[in-house]
Amino acid sequence: MTGKTMAKPAHNQYMPGHKASQVIHHEWRTAENSAAYLLPKLEEMRKQNPNLRLLDVGAGSGTISVGLAKRLPDGLVTATDLSDAILKRAEGFAEAADVKNMRFQPASAYELPFSDASFDVTHCHQMLCHLDAPGDALREMLRVTKPGGIVAARESDLEMQCIWPELSGVLRFNEVIKATHKAAGGCNTGGRQLISWALKAGASRDQITASYGTWCYSAPSDRKLWDAINVAAAMAERIRNGEMRKKAIELGLITDSNVEEMAAGWEAWAERDDASLGMMHGEILIQK
Amino acid sequence: MTGKTMAKPAHNQYMPGHKASQVIHHEWRTAENSAAYLLPKLEEMRKQNPNLRLLDVGAGSGTISVGLAKRLPDGLVTATDLSDAILKRAEGFAEAADVKNMRFQPASAYELPFSDASFDVTHCHQMLCHLDAPGDALREMLRVTKPGGIVAARESDLEMQCIWPELSGVLRFNEVIKATHKAAGGCNTGGRQLISWALKAGASRDQITASYGTWCYSAPSDRKLWDAINVAAAMAERIRNGEMRKKAIELGLITDSNVEEMAAGWEAWAERDDASLGMMHGEILIQK
Repeated sequence: MTGKTMAKPAHNQYMPGHKASQVIHHEWRTAENSAAYLLPKLEEMRKQNPNLRLLDVGAGSGTISVGLAKRLPDGLVTATDLSDAILKRAEGFAEAADVKNMRFQPASAYELPFSDASFDVTHCHQMLCHLDAPGDALREMLRVTKPGGIVAARESDLEMQCIWPELSGVLRFNEVIKATHKAAGGCNTGGRQLISWALKAGASRDQITASYGTWCYSAPSDRKLWDAINVAAAMAERIRNGEMRKKAIELGLITDSNVEEMAAGWEAWAERDDASLGMMHGEILIQK
Repeated sequence: MTGKTMAKPAHNQYMPGHKASQVIHHEWRTAENSAAYLLPKLEEMRKQNPNLRLLDVGAGSGTISVGLAKRLPDGLVTATDLSDAILKRAEGFAEAADVKNMRFQPASAYELPFSDASFDVTHCHQMLCHLDAPGDALREMLRVTKPGGIVAARESDLEMQCIWPELSGVLRFNEVIKATHKAAGGCNTGGRQLISWALKAGASRDQITASYGTWCYSAPSDRKLWDAINVAAAMAERIRNGEMRKKAIELGLITDSNVEEMAAGWEAWAERDDASLGMMHGEILIQK
C-alpha cells in the first residue's frame, strides 16, 4: 500500500499486456470457474430485482463479464478496462456469444466515470493485485455501489501456486513470473490481503465475507488438448513472446538462453499424466 | 515415496498425536467443509443405491465420517483408524449426533481388514500425507472398493498455506510445523502429488478427476469466538502443549523460549480484523 497516500497512483497499467500469449490464458476464465463465490448471492439478488446493474472493473477480454451478463438476462452489465483495445475484444466476444445486455467503457479503476450508487454489484477479478493502491480502487468500487448492493473481488496470490512434477524449467518460470509481477509494482500476496484492503477502503469487518477459491489444471483438456487455450501453451508463449520475456530480460532475471528451457518445461509438463498446477485466490464479498 | 518398495512401511503412526491440542482443530472439520468435492457424486450414487457402504480410512475423531453417514441414512459407514483411543472418541461423537449407521474398527491403512470389493465408496482425509508409502495405501483402498465404486482422497499441501498479517510468531510456527511434519516422515506437498500417487497405485489417468479445495479461517467465529474449537486456540495449544512442541524441541528447531512467542503470535492474530489464514488441499476421485 505504498501508493495509498498518492492522489493518482502511478501504477495503473496492466504490465503483462494483451498479446495473444496473455489473452489465451485469460479466455479460459468463466463466471463459473472464476466467480463461483459470487454466483449464489447474485442469483439471490436477481430474484429480488431482475434488472440488476453490474459493473465489471478491469474486465479485460470479458469472458467472466459475459458469463455474468448471461445470468442477468434482464439486467445490464457494464465492462470497463484501462485498455480500449482489450475492450474491443471483449465486445467481439459478447457479440459472438449473442449477449446483448452489455456496455463497454474505457476507465481507470481509480476514477470510475459513474455517479455514486450507480450499481447493484461491482465486481473485479485479478485486477487489484496489479495496482499500487488497491485500497483506493476498492474505495472507488464501494462509492459507485448502491446501499444494499455488493462489491465482489477475487485476487490471485502468486505465492500460492503449486506445480507437480517439479520440472526445473517450470519451477524457474514460476520464480520469474513472481519477480516480474513484483518488479512491475504488483502484489504477490493479494489474495490473503483482500480483507485488509477492504478495511482500508472503509468497509467494516462485519460487511465482509471472505473465502478462498482455486483453479486446478490437471485434466488433459486443460493441459494440452483444447486448441490454443490451454495453460501450458499459454505459459510457454508468455515466456517465448510475451511482455513477461521482455520484462524479465530487462530486469536481468533471465537471458535469452533461459527462455527455451522454461517454454520447453511447460511443454514437457503438459505431456505428463501426473501433472497438476494449482492456484489459490482470495475472494471477498462486501455488503454495502 | 521412499518407502514404496518396503513390504511394511515403517511410518504409519500419526505423529501429531491425539491430545486436545490436535483434536480441537480436527473437530472443526465437517463433510461440508472438508469433503465438498465428494458430495455431489455421493448423492448421485445414493440415488442409484440407498444402501451404499462407505469406508473412511484414518477417520480420526470422525466428524467427517459422521457427516457422511448422515447423508446415507440407509447406508453404512465404517470408520477405521490406527488408534483405538481416537476411534472411541469418534464413537462418542456419533452417539452424541444420534447417528446409528456407523461401525468402528481399528486398522492400518496398509492392511485393511476387508475383502476385495467390499465398499462402494472408500474415503480418506489428510491421511496419506502422513505415510511413507501413500501409493500403497491408495492401492489398498482401491482393492477394497467395488468395481463401479469410487475412492476419494483429500490431502493437505503444507507449502500451500497463506497467513495475513505476517506476525513473526505465526510465520515461525508455520515453518516449524512444516519441518516437524517432514522430519516425522510426512509429505509437505501431498496435495499436488495425489494424481501421481493414484497412478502409482494402479489407477489410469482417465479414472481420475482432480480438484483443489480450501479452508478459509478469517471470520471472527473461526478465529476466536467459537469456544475452544477455533483455529488460533488450537494452534497456540499445539505449540504450548502438543506433540509438535516436543518434536520441534527434539529436532532442535525451537527451544522452550521460542514457544511462547509462537503461541502468543496466534493469540494476537486472532484479535486482528484483517486476519486471514488460507490452506489449499488436493482432491481426487478415482472411478474404479
